Amino acid sequence: MLPVNLYSDNVAPAAPEIMAALARVNVGPAQPYGMDPETKALKAALSDLFGTEVWVFLASTGTAANAIALSAMTPNYGAIYCSETAHIETSECGAAELFTGGAKLQLIRAKSGRMDPDALDEKIRTAGKGMPHRIQPAAVNLTIGTERGTVYSVKELERIAEITKKHGLKFHMDGARMANALVAIGASAAEVTTRIGVDVLSFGATKNGALNAEAIVVFNKDIAEELRFRMRRAGQIWSKMRYAAAQIGAYVENGLWLKLARQANAAAKRLSEGLVQVPGVRMIETVEINQLFIEMPERVIAGLEADGIGLGRRDGGVRMVTAWSTTDEEVDHVVARAKAHGARAAA
Amino acid sequence: MLPVNLYSDNVAPAAPEIMAALARVNVGPAQPYGMDPETKALKAALSDLFGTEVWVFLASTGTAANAIALSAMTPNYGAIYCSETAHIETSECGAAELFTGGAKLQLIRAKSGRMDPDALDEKIRTAGKGMPHRIQPAAVNLTIGTERGTVYSVKELERIAEITKKHGLKFHMDGARMANALVAIGASAAEVTTRIGVDVLSFGATKNGALNAEAIVVFNKDIAEELRFRMRRAGQIWSKMRYAAAQIGAYVENGLWLKLARQANAAAKRLSEGLVQVPGVRMIETVEINQLFIEMPERVIAGLEADGIGLGRRDGGVRMVTAWSTTDEEVDHVVARAKAHGARAAA
Amino acid sequence: MLPVNLYSDNVAPAAPEIMAALARVNVGPAQPYGMDPETKALKAALSDLFGTEVWVFLASTGTAANAIALSAMTPNYGAIYCSETAHIETSECGAAELFTGGAKLQLIRAKSGRMDPDALDEKIRTAGKGMPHRIQPAAVNLTIGTERGTVYSVKELERIAEITKKHGLKFHMDGARMANALVAIGASAAEVTTRIGVDVLSFGATKNGALNAEAIVVFNKDIAEELRFRMRRAGQIWSKMRYAAAQIGAYVENGLWLKLARQANAAAKRLSEGLVQVPGVRMIETVEINQLFIEMPERVIAGLEADGIGLGRRDGGVRMVTAWSTTDEEVDHVVARAKAHGARAAA
Amino acid sequence: MLPVNLYSDNVAPAAPEIMAALARVNVGPAQPYGMDPETKALKAALSDLFGTEVWVFLASTGTAANAIALSAMTPNYGAIYCSETAHIETSECGAAELFTGGAKLQLIRAKSGRMDPDALDEKIRTAGKGMPHRIQPAAVNLTIGTERGTVYSVKELERIAEITKKHGLKFHMDGARMANALVAIGASAAEVTTRIGVDVLSFGATKNGALNAEAIVVFNKDIAEELRFRMRRAGQIWSKMRYAAAQIGAYVENGLWLKLARQANAAAKRLSEGLVQVPGVRMIETVEINQLFIEMPERVIAGLEADGIGLGRRDGGVRMVTAWSTTDEEVDHVVARAKAHGARAAA
Repeated sequence: MLPVNLYSDNVAPAAPEIMAALARVNVGPAQPYGMDPETKALKAALSDLFGTEVWVFLASTGTAANAIALSAMTPNYGAIYCSETAHIETSECGAAELFTGGAKLQLIRAKSGRMDPDALDEKIRTAGKGMPHRIQPAAVNLTIGTERGTVYSVKELERIAEITKKHGLKFHMDGARMANALVAIGASAAEVTTRIGVDVLSFGATKNGALNAEAIVVFNKDIAEELRFRMRRAGQIWSKMRYAAAQIGAYVENGLWLKLARQANAAAKRLSEGLVQVPGVRMIETVEINQLFIEMPERVIAGLEADGIGLGRRDGGVRMVTAWSTTDEEVDHVVARAKAHGARAAA
Repeated sequence: MLPVNLYSDNVAPAAPEIMAALARVNVGPAQPYGMDPETKALKAALSDLFGTEVWVFLASTGTAANAIALSAMTPNYGAIYCSETAHIETSECGAAELFTGGAKLQLIRAKSGRMDPDALDEKIRTAGKGMPHRIQPAAVNLTIGTERGTVYSVKELERIAEITKKHGLKFHMDGARMANALVAIGASAAEVTTRIGVDVLSFGATKNGALNAEAIVVFNKDIAEELRFRMRRAGQIWSKMRYAAAQIGAYVENGLWLKLARQANAAAKRLSEGLVQVPGVRMIETVEINQLFIEMPERVIAGLEADGIGLGRRDGGVRMVTAWSTTDEEVDHVVARAKAHGARAAA
Repeated sequence: MLPVNLYSDNVAPAAPEIMAALARVNVGPAQPYGMDPETKALKAALSDLFGTEVWVFLASTGTAANAIALSAMTPNYGAIYCSETAHIETSECGAAELFTGGAKLQLIRAKSGRMDPDALDEKIRTAGKGMPHRIQPAAVNLTIGTERGTVYSVKELERIAEITKKHGLKFHMDGARMANALVAIGASAAEVTTRIGVDVLSFGATKNGALNAEAIVVFNKDIAEELRFRMRRAGQIWSKMRYAAAQIGAYVENGLWLKLARQANAAAKRLSEGLVQVPGVRMIETVEINQLFIEMPERVIAGLEADGIGLGRRDGGVRMVTAWSTTDEEVDHVVARAKAHGARAAA
Repeated sequence: MLPVNLYSDNVAPAAPEIMAALARVNVGPAQPYGMDPETKALKAALSDLFGTEVWVFLASTGTAANAIALSAMTPNYGAIYCSETAHIETSECGAAELFTGGAKLQLIRAKSGRMDPDALDEKIRTAGKGMPHRIQPAAVNLTIGTERGTVYSVKELERIAEITKKHGLKFHMDGARMANALVAIGASAAEVTTRIGVDVLSFGATKNGALNAEAIVVFNKDIAEELRFRMRRAGQIWSKMRYAAAQIGAYVENGLWLKLARQANAAAKRLSEGLVQVPGVRMIETVEINQLFIEMPERVIAGLEADGIGLGRRDGGVRMVTAWSTTDEEVDHVVARAKAHGARAAA
């Protein structure tokens, strides 16, 4: 067994199906900048997946996808509402502020990573729409599989979408772990996007089996038209686009993305159930997708680290993230080691 | 034979050695965001190549590499001097302006793509340094293998570097076709960068055999420190960095990059020598690397297009670009078809 | 008596001494863009006032002064720490974000408008300095005469300055109501700025007797050098600078600014003492300068409004602001009317 | 006689009528931020002047007026076409780039300060509209009384307006010396703006008798709505707006602005006619408004400087600018001194 690394789902390799797709398209010439057959086929495949015509822009990272998408949904004097734990707020070095020219993120109180819809409604309602000394409400952002390892239900998404539309705002969904979220709540891609009125989706693939490609899926033609220029200006139009298109194409073909996510979620569940048997170990958040936030005795944490098991220390606790590639054997190894360290800790 | 496509070197597939590197690193977990062994090894490999410690940032496109690099070399009220035909001016949808917060490109008269050093000197000298109503001279940008298919000699580079330093400016080199340029002039990587005082190099790989990776090579530690944040903010820090590092690593290993460029340049030379035998065909620019700018009778152009041969119409003429993968067979086919169309044209 | 207007100190006219200064300088030609004698004299006068060499930039509004000053104190990936009630956060339509290119304001818990120093220290300490996915701590902003009508003591300012410097940040003071603050705490201009390490001060004058001029007073030469260009680029370099310089010159001559502020503060005290005698009226915040935040029965509020007395409804209460021009007669009139309405309300 | 200063029209004092207006409005309280009666009256007065409803925003400088106006007329990936000698290009430290978030100025060949309409048409036509790697045509800017002391005729303006509209662009007029231009060509304000399709006008007043106020006059409601926020965000909404409104109000009342400009233009004509009698003196540009660009022997230049006469050395020649306050006596003095120095020079 290779070293077990649960530091992030980003540590995982690429799925074999996706590597195979790269090899498959690496034959002969293809027009650059998205004029190739793979990129055209991808638009068709994703339109099919979402049940409506979509416009697809391929991005190198989730940060780029989020920030550039938002830049087409707000004036520079706009407000973007997001959870206080949102990735765009905490972990993107102000990318949204860069690409929007200085729009402001407005933080909404969240519980276990899910924003409070009433707090959102109140914040927009009291924002001072039309008053020149105030930034102007423009967009709502949420991460469907949240930064705290939980998922929004379809009902919660509908509620937030309704508030968003009531106030005339645009709706951006960060789908960094969308596949994990969908398999967790048993919903389809369309049910959480087009059916409720999402305008733009950052469609994550890298954490769940791709090498280095994400997609911005746009459901609104005006935004798509603007993104044509904003993406190029952002340095996000790959000349050899086929290699990104092939990744996303293989990712959604025959439900691969959901299959990979199911494995990651199952590993997380197995891991969670094993770890809570260790004295002093407790899940800080309900484990709904593939992220675990864990309260764990220091002795156990240090022990796992000494074993060479990758994990992330966060705010006094531990974050572990499983991936498509995490095996039962790996999970059981981690649990066994935790139990061993726990036993010593208790002794 | 597959269809011949000389529309751009971007139409070429990835080199087998680079595909193999991707497969090689796709094993087991690796820390994200550049903390992986491949990325660390790349820093060592490029430091070795350039003969000094360098800092390496991996970017998804040349546009991103250029614009983000420049953003760490100028205040927002700065002037960036570049050739009037520079890629950052004509073909990046204002990316440099976005990432710099609105610095201005100042265009220098160019001949066959190479900026006139005297015009550069004069423009900086009369820029109004220290005068508040004027933007302030900050950086010089040039493309070593120019947008017109020519190359700067080491002597010309030294002259421009001297002017740049005399005025206290930073020096950015766009190395989109650096390998092609180096084999054309028989210089080493260090001779055209560290030895003359280049501060940052956009080190191109995609056009010459990679899939989707470029490197920003930084020779100045302060700029490198700032780029750590600017790259993240720009959405350019791949989580699974190993796949980009592996591409660049394989690219420079055992001189692969130069080997690939030699083939592209040789194909361009063969193509050029063949085409000028067609009546009415003339090279608009001297063919020094792998780009041809060609005056060609409309009948010949239309004939080649009808044959399914990829080319680019530009300003009444034709651009053809060979790649690492262009074969003699392909070149000879194009020449033969041009001759055939030329014969009919003359008839 | 003219209508009484306590909507804001901005409703007041300009002080006669300042009008006289405008007339005095309106004679013959003067060099533009700050090369005139008035602007030069102002630098000397303010250097004298602050007890050290200062660099002075004249701005048209407090928003411009704040935002442009901050733009020279942070990279675009920087964090600016301020109170959750700070003017730069709530009332400037994102000006700081515009001029900084998208730096982020980080809100610190405040009590009665004064930020909590421990919360500030903790927020900076846990900001993730050096981590690329995090914005980087750059500057602290506070408003000495706060948005809630209170004042920081010299001791509190020292504490915040110490935290700011300990973490290597720059210190920006918003002095929108600096004169009111200084007379309230009995401190000199130097005691709250140069002695504790303020880097840049937005020196307010418009609210306290000027027509339309503010000064950015810079205590750090490097920042001053950068502001020369940033001010011009921001459209803030008046061609006929003498008219702004004359305003600020007259404002500080012979302590006029403090005299004006003393009158405003005294009026606020008198008003506060009178109003609390009305049943149901209560000061929400301690009245330390010239702003009153008042809990007041609706009947009383509506009655005052019907009397044509200017006031501001805020969050269910009332804000009244006195100015240098507010007379005892005006205050007594407002109190008498409030009492009359209160009596009816109680009946 | 006071020292004669022809360095710029910015060296002139404010006109007595405008000083009087300041005194007139400096009575009692007035609502802030443009809710005062003077600002409301100004909208009516300017709507009357331009013969249609206009929206008025008061700015502190012409640079601010130009750059903020343009920021509401282009996306950040837009191109703004202007003369190669345009003030926004040469003299505003990149303000347009700051406020637009990095739009690009595209320079059009000009003759004596007036852009060549054919060159404009060609540049827009070949800009690559719809091509993502190209910035997108957005707006045309011109200065009606040009930076070279000439004026566009109504016919020329109509031609440029037609080109602008044909390509679907917005039209911005820099009216820094609009009054001087109108009296030169005998046209009305409406004839050069609303009748030909100008969208936004920077309406200059400071150079021609005001202290420190300019107006942005907007003829397009959507742009006006956006400017409400952009002006505040730019730090351009004066709290005591009445002092700016009063200046512009007095400026246009009873044709004062045209009267002042007539005097400046007449002084320029008298000066020009006198100076050309000096051997070796020649007007480089036709003197159409109040700016003179003069070829003059060094001995004469140095002599005038030694006399304490203010002038501007430019590119080996001299610029002199007359103002509303320039008297015949002053002009004759300058001419006499130039003749005296010329005589010595010739001797």
